[in-house]
Amino acid sequence: MFNDFKPVDGRPVYIQLKEYLKKMITNGHLLEHQKLPSTRELSTLLSVSRNTVLTAYADLEQEGLIYAIKGKGNFVGRVETSKAPSIQLNWEEKVSEVTLLAEEMDLMKHGVRWNKGMIAFNSIAPDEKLFDVENFKRAFLTRMSIEGDIVLNYGYAKGFKPLIDYLLHYMEIKGVDISNKDILITNGFTEGLDILLSSLAKKSGRILCENPTHHSALKLFRLHGFEIHGIEMEDDGINIPQLEKSLSESNFDFSYLIPSYHNPTGIVTSSEKRMEMMRLMSKYQIPILEDGFNEELRYSGSHLAPFAAFAGNGNNVIYLSSFSKILFPGLRVGWILADKELIYYLESMKRARTIHTSTLDQAVLYQYLHDGHFEKYLKRARAVYKKKYELAVHACEQYLPFKRITGDGGLHLFIELEKHINVRELLKKCYQMGVVFSPGDIFYTNGEGSNTFRLGFSRLKEEEIVRGIKIIGDILKREFGGS
Amino acid sequence: MFNDFKPVDGRPVYIQLKEYLKKMITNGHLLEHQKLPSTRELSTLLSVSRNTVLTAYADLEQEGLIYAIKGKGNFVGRVETSKAPSIQLNWEEKVSEVTLLAEEMDLMKHGVRWNKGMIAFNSIAPDEKLFDVENFKRAFLTRMSIEGDIVLNYGYAKGFKPLIDYLLHYMEIKGVDISNKDILITNGFTEGLDILLSSLAKKSGRILCENPTHHSALKLFRLHGFEIHGIEMEDDGINIPQLEKSLSESNFDFSYLIPSYHNPTGIVTSSEKRMEMMRLMSKYQIPILEDGFNEELRYSGSHLAPFAAFAGNGNNVIYLSSFSKILFPGLRVGWILADKELIYYLESMKRARTIHTSTLDQAVLYQYLHDGHFEKYLKRARAVYKKKYELAVHACEQYLPFKRITGDGGLHLFIELEKHINVRELLKKCYQMGVVFSPGDIFYTNGEGSNTFRLGFSRLKEEEIVRGIKIIGDILKREFGGS
Repeated sequence: MFNDFKPVDGRPVYIQLKEYLKKMITNGHLLEHQKLPSTRELSTLLSVSRNTVLTAYADLEQEGLIYAIKGKGNFVGRVETSKAPSIQLNWEEKVSEVTLLAEEMDLMKHGVRWNKGMIAFNSIAPDEKLFDVENFKRAFLTRMSIEGDIVLNYGYAKGFKPLIDYLLHYMEIKGVDISNKDILITNGFTEGLDILLSSLAKKSGRILCENPTHHSALKLFRLHGFEIHGIEMEDDGINIPQLEKSLSESNFDFSYLIPSYHNPTGIVTSSEKRMEMMRLMSKYQIPILEDGFNEELRYSGSHLAPFAAFAGNGNNVIYLSSFSKILFPGLRVGWILADKELIYYLESMKRARTIHTSTLDQAVLYQYLHDGHFEKYLKRARAVYKKKYELAVHACEQYLPFKRITGDGGLHLFIELEKHINVRELLKKCYQMGVVFSPGDIFYTNGEGSNTFRLGFSRLKEEEIVRGIKIIGDILKREFGGS
Repeated sequence: MFNDFKPVDGRPVYIQLKEYLKKMITNGHLLEHQKLPSTRELSTLLSVSRNTVLTAYADLEQEGLIYAIKGKGNFVGRVETSKAPSIQLNWEEKVSEVTLLAEEMDLMKHGVRWNKGMIAFNSIAPDEKLFDVENFKRAFLTRMSIEGDIVLNYGYAKGFKPLIDYLLHYMEIKGVDISNKDILITNGFTEGLDILLSSLAKKSGRILCENPTHHSALKLFRLHGFEIHGIEMEDDGINIPQLEKSLSESNFDFSYLIPSYHNPTGIVTSSEKRMEMMRLMSKYQIPILEDGFNEELRYSGSHLAPFAAFAGNGNNVIYLSSFSKILFPGLRVGWILADKELIYYLESMKRARTIHTSTLDQAVLYQYLHDGHFEKYLKRARAVYKKKYELAVHACEQYLPFKRITGDGGLHLFIELEKHINVRELLKKCYQMGVVFSPGDIFYTNGEGSNTFRLGFSRLKEEEIVRGIKIIGDILKREFGGS
């Protein structure tokens, strides 16, 4: 007995001893009224200091797990270890339809698998080697010294006030009229979208969006039971006549649009199309959910105003964003900028569901932004990603027999092959050669896209980008008759 | 022009200048092709270094907001500042029924209001003066030095692996059989409950719980459209014959129970009743959502096993908890321990809704726990809260003409007055005297409790606790004929 006590490093030994004994008591290995070894005995037996045993025993006594009798020693206290009749429920039968669908659409479970050492083009997460860990630490320490106790206690559902003010200003300098707007901080973009989908009344039950579009958004639309109507993407944005036709024919509860670095195509919607789209949405009184995805990762070109700016003092644009894809995805901080009245309602939903977003995350992010580190980081990140982007475009042009390639920046490209080529088949062959990517069909609203795929290059080394694209190209030419 | 540029401290001036100019461009105060002052002029005008202006101009140029002509200077670029026809939607008409209900039940909006300087018994948040900020900082720096880049990048929906392992062990030493269990990390207890309510199929649509019970849980039950069936609380837990009767008469999708420091009554369910409840739940095959609320804040007495331990290798108990109420509520970290198969499904729901819980929060919390700071903090917190608890009980006995008082520990007491006394009326009078508390009716499943209230003492000074209770008692005696 007691010979399997093996303390690990870095954790006080008395706590480990206490837990070890507690476990033996609660699982019935030590019985009620059983005498424990004396502190001297146990310290010798386990090669720990006597103080360690004394402290462990004192804690156990305080928790009511052991009791001491003066002059006699320590004894195991009364602990209920009997069990109720064991029952086994079939949980699969007890989960809801929507949960089964979430599982079915879970790309981490059913998407492309890859192993270490493979060239994985399926991620568009930022490259952690770029992370500005030192300044992040600095921001943390600064904020903690200003108001550590505030940061660690409950905050407000709407969010951390200095961050909200920062973001309102941030949107204002993008040209957004913030006079009747407000901001709700969310656990990343995804929670923002989920809260919106729960909060907006379902009337027609139809959503209008670009086709293809962001997979996580599609998933949430489906989980919320919406019918999805996708509009074809041209090189400068959505097909306007198609959009107008759809708007004139059906009602939509809202539209979901990604004007900047559209995911997955990487297309940046032109200023003219933005204006045209805004006009149509205003005409048909359709709320716009604008996804500000990676708006910050423009490598070149003229300034483009978000829909939220085109709306002027109108209130039909709901702007969702986060810095996750650029800065620190491990911090789950996103935001919704929208009409004050709408935010007032969303705030109550947020409070009901998660009380509020981590104050720590918000406060450190705020400090990091305020201190100007984001600007500097962005310059560095842009330079690195731009180089990768140019390499990827160049390699595609050199090695890939594509029909169309899109992507004006950001962290990925989108490739369309000849109609007859099945990308799932291509992926299988590439997998065997150690290369994976995201098949395009998962982004389509209507089951199309079997001849498309997305190439995310953010986390790959420059050499891997070129080598990986060459491998895909070689397989395409050899096995699929690409020329 | 340019005379309203007023940089704030602590943020690089070039960024502030850049933002200032960007705002003037995007809102149309500076027009396309307009010449900007030379860097020398602007630096003199604004009393900033010439380098500051140079950097700001360079950044603006990179963003496409200005362009330079060699030898001529800098000019405003092409920026779309026209607006679409402004439309005003009536958002109140566009939000869903469930959102209106969330707003209606939002205690932060419609609950007790209080001002600074009042004695506010309505909070049960921890006292931030107790926070162990120094060790928290230490934990942060340790974790960042081990794997700062990992902490800041995407994590897994299920949670941060070392924290999950820690918590599994933590539950094991409480006597829980973890062999077929798994853990999902959530944004606090509240998100855990919300995910469960979304994930479990609604069959009977009925939930069984203690009456009164946790207000946030009641709110979520209602938002999810459940019918709530409450069972009366006795001094040692739920009324067992009533429970058995209800179980035999109706079907329930699950039960929600708070055996330790029941909120709001502070009652700790006895070991005998826990066993009896488990037996009944097993007999009727009812899943138990066990709320581990403040289980750690026992001030005395023998060890009590959670339902999750009584279940043995059965799989019908879903244990939800967080350290928020004790440790750092600003970190939104809670967890669900349940059957592996169920966690597998919940994981997909979690991923669909918020991707994952903040890795930063999880990693720092893990390090803090691992390093043994929690144990030490808990001892200190227990001592402080215990003293406040004893003072509060004593003051109630001395000053309050109550019919029943419950609360075996934790951070609050629950008071029942004579039937005829309307606590909302009492609250109004107390408010005038600078004292507020939580009226009990908000915790009841069936509109009862008009003669009850909860006294949270965690954040009050000792002197305030006594003074506040005396004021309530005086008003009761004077105005409500308490004796």
